[in-house]
Amino acid sequence: MFTLVIGNKNYSSWSLRPWLVLKQLNEPFKEQRIDLYLPDSKTRILAVNPAGKLPVLVDDKLRIWDSLAICEYLAECFPAAGLWPDDLKQRAVARAIVAEVHSGFAALRQNLSMDLSLRQNGYESSPAVEADITRIVSVWETQRERHAGDGDFLLGRFTIADAFFAPICSRFQTYNVALPPTSAAYMRHILSLPAMQEWYRAAEHETRRPA
Amino acid sequence: MFTLVIGNKNYSSWSLRPWLVLKQLNEPFKEQRIDLYLPDSKTRILAVNPAGKLPVLVDDKLRIWDSLAICEYLAECFPAAGLWPDDLKQRAVARAIVAEVHSGFAALRQNLSMDLSLRQNGYESSPAVEADITRIVSVWETQRERHAGDGDFLLGRFTIADAFFAPICSRFQTYNVALPPTSAAYMRHILSLPAMQEWYRAAEHETRRPA
Repeated sequence: MFTLVIGNKNYSSWSLRPWLVLKQLNEPFKEQRIDLYLPDSKTRILAVNPAGKLPVLVDDKLRIWDSLAICEYLAECFPAAGLWPDDLKQRAVARAIVAEVHSGFAALRQNLSMDLSLRQNGYESSPAVEADITRIVSVWETQRERHAGDGDFLLGRFTIADAFFAPICSRFQTYNVALPPTSAAYMRHILSLPAMQEWYRAAEHETRRPA
Repeated sequence: MFTLVIGNKNYSSWSLRPWLVLKQLNEPFKEQRIDLYLPDSKTRILAVNPAGKLPVLVDDKLRIWDSLAICEYLAECFPAAGLWPDDLKQRAVARAIVAEVHSGFAALRQNLSMDLSLRQNGYESSPAVEADITRIVSVWETQRERHAGDGDFLLGRFTIADAFFAPICSRFQTYNVALPPTSAAYMRHILSLPAMQEWYRAAEHETRRPA
């Protein structure tokens, strides 16, 4: 059985992505949580991942220490689940979306940090933050328009791209970001997934990080 | 035929990665260069990529706008080339390495920016920069030790992981970063590839960016 080592559900946007993929797969897995804000957090993370970050997927002797690589591995382990689109070119687009999220949107990350329990009417705006939001909305609108008849996810059925945007959906809700109707509907769809509700409920019982 | 749209060879570390993969494939492709430091650069980039970044791979009507997604697409288009390791678990490790580079090493990026024509005896050090270098060296030493008998690349034969480290090899040369022997040999091996030499020669003829 897989073990997924994750950080605090309230804050760890990187942990949420592969966790959501595993849940959508209906694949049983062990979950190991390392609290990110304790004196020994760093030591405990380094013991499972020399890169010093979470999440990590443990599969017997294999440790995969990056969220995107974990999702690619799950896509290979469960080909019938269709975690990427079937079509080669659509798959390339899905991967470009995912890789853009993986390396980008630094301003959004920094200024609208993921915090599930927070509800705030707004955020500290800047041209960089607005450019990030505009770009995300543009990707959502384009993909939802293209796949409107295929299902309610970004590319129709659930793919890794949805898992990568799940933390962004949470941020948009937390900071009450104004969205066009199609994007707002997509955000609500992701946040209403049973797995997302489960993640949110578990986060309620976590200790808040030090101010 | 593919068209790869890239930035300045002297500076665009993201462009180098898929370019090197295409060259190692021996796959003919058109190269379109957009100078990154002209008044109309932004407009020209946006015309090929709404995300506003380079590189972009154009394959007929398909545009792949992220370096990692381009490399994954090439791995799918040319399965016999072995751009990822054959073994599922080694492939997961290779992808974790690549994804870590894709999203990480921000301090190294910022303080040891890629500049092929520059030779400097040192760099502005900081704990974050040193942590990045230590981590990269640790990955190189681990992989080269594991695959010493399989070839001179990170996982034996050339894979996407080498393409992702190629700009880092260039940075280590530019700033004369002290490396243990195995890592230094790996860096020299990458920099001595005919394709890398070709990239370096082309960079010599480019205009320098404004100071």
